[in-house]
Amino acid sequence: MGMTSRAGSETTPKGRGRRPGGTDTRAAIVDAARKSFAAKGYDKASMRGIAREAGVDPALVHHYFEGKAGLFAATLDVPVDPAELIDRITAGDVDRLGWRIVETFLTVWEPPERRDALVALVRSSMTSEEAARMLREFLGREVFGRIAASTGAADPQLRGALAASQMIGLVVARYVIRVPALVEATREELVERIGPVLQAHLVDRVPERE
Amino acid sequence: MGMTSRAGSETTPKGRGRRPGGTDTRAAIVDAARKSFAAKGYDKASMRGIAREAGVDPALVHHYFEGKAGLFAATLDVPVDPAELIDRITAGDVDRLGWRIVETFLTVWEPPERRDALVALVRSSMTSEEAARMLREFLGREVFGRIAASTGAADPQLRGALAASQMIGLVVARYVIRVPALVEATREELVERIGPVLQAHLVDRVPERE
Repeated sequence: MGMTSRAGSETTPKGRGRRPGGTDTRAAIVDAARKSFAAKGYDKASMRGIAREAGVDPALVHHYFEGKAGLFAATLDVPVDPAELIDRITAGDVDRLGWRIVETFLTVWEPPERRDALVALVRSSMTSEEAARMLREFLGREVFGRIAASTGAADPQLRGALAASQMIGLVVARYVIRVPALVEATREELVERIGPVLQAHLVDRVPERE
Repeated sequence: MGMTSRAGSETTPKGRGRRPGGTDTRAAIVDAARKSFAAKGYDKASMRGIAREAGVDPALVHHYFEGKAGLFAATLDVPVDPAELIDRITAGDVDRLGWRIVETFLTVWEPPERRDALVALVRSSMTSEEAARMLREFLGREVFGRIAASTGAADPQLRGALAASQMIGLVVARYVIRVPALVEATREELVERIGPVLQAHLVDRVPERE
């Protein structure tokens, strides 16, 4: 909407009204996509609608991005390298692993504009098998799979999945369903309360079955 | 609204306008309840308002359903009374509270036909503020709010919300996103792994801030 008027202001006297190609165009498309995915979820946002929102020709969106999934991945392009973050998380003291994950997670995702992308991702994974698959593969391969493997635990897959379930639940309860006590909780409270729980999922000895 | 007119059509020549008791009546009440919960949220929907919506006497609603929680469960097609389940959960040994919650939860929700209703509820709470409100109010008032209050903890709201976040995350990760290790986990494994985590959220001493 705002994008459309910006595109309009770039209209040249020659009558070429379309936004020209370049870095700004790509950024405008990603920006429009982020809004569309957050507002509509993955399934209902369309390349055409995103093009309209960005004030560009649909062909240009297809020029920059393979498809909706590729464009969706670009919206998650938070200015951090996930691999590097995970390296930092797993390099530290294993006795503080759980707390470090929550701290890092909140640092990366708490700024509102990034949170929107995260909410869009989780929301899409509810209604789109494509998005669900993307999310579970990303979490398994790049995030919780690597973290759980780093501890040398006997059952890294289950441990990583359990840690993922708590973090997914935090995102859903705090940002989507908006459970009041979690909306109001401070960053420090969340680290203090969820840190030991991730530690239990990932590191603690599992008690013998009685 | 539609219910009222259906009730009207059942008016006998004798002028007895009330819907008679029976299977249809119960179904009409559940249908009216579903609409009321969606429109007003859990807290503001009342047994009286639901009776009006269904075109029946309020006494008839109380005849069929113990209370609002039971009526809510009926809208999800789950043949259990949440209030009674929570009573059973909170009545037991507090040292096993977390494990008991997971066991009860899985007993109630694991049968596929009920799971579908649960997944539908969680899924709709992702895209509809109406559904989100209904879910968070129900969980707060009837489920985790009551469980957390039963322990006498100083901060029942935050503890209940954290426990809710883990259980929501389990539902999302196991049934919706279908993280493989959680799909494959047995009921016993889930009780063993998530029990202590709920115990930490609800009961354990929170360590001093360092």
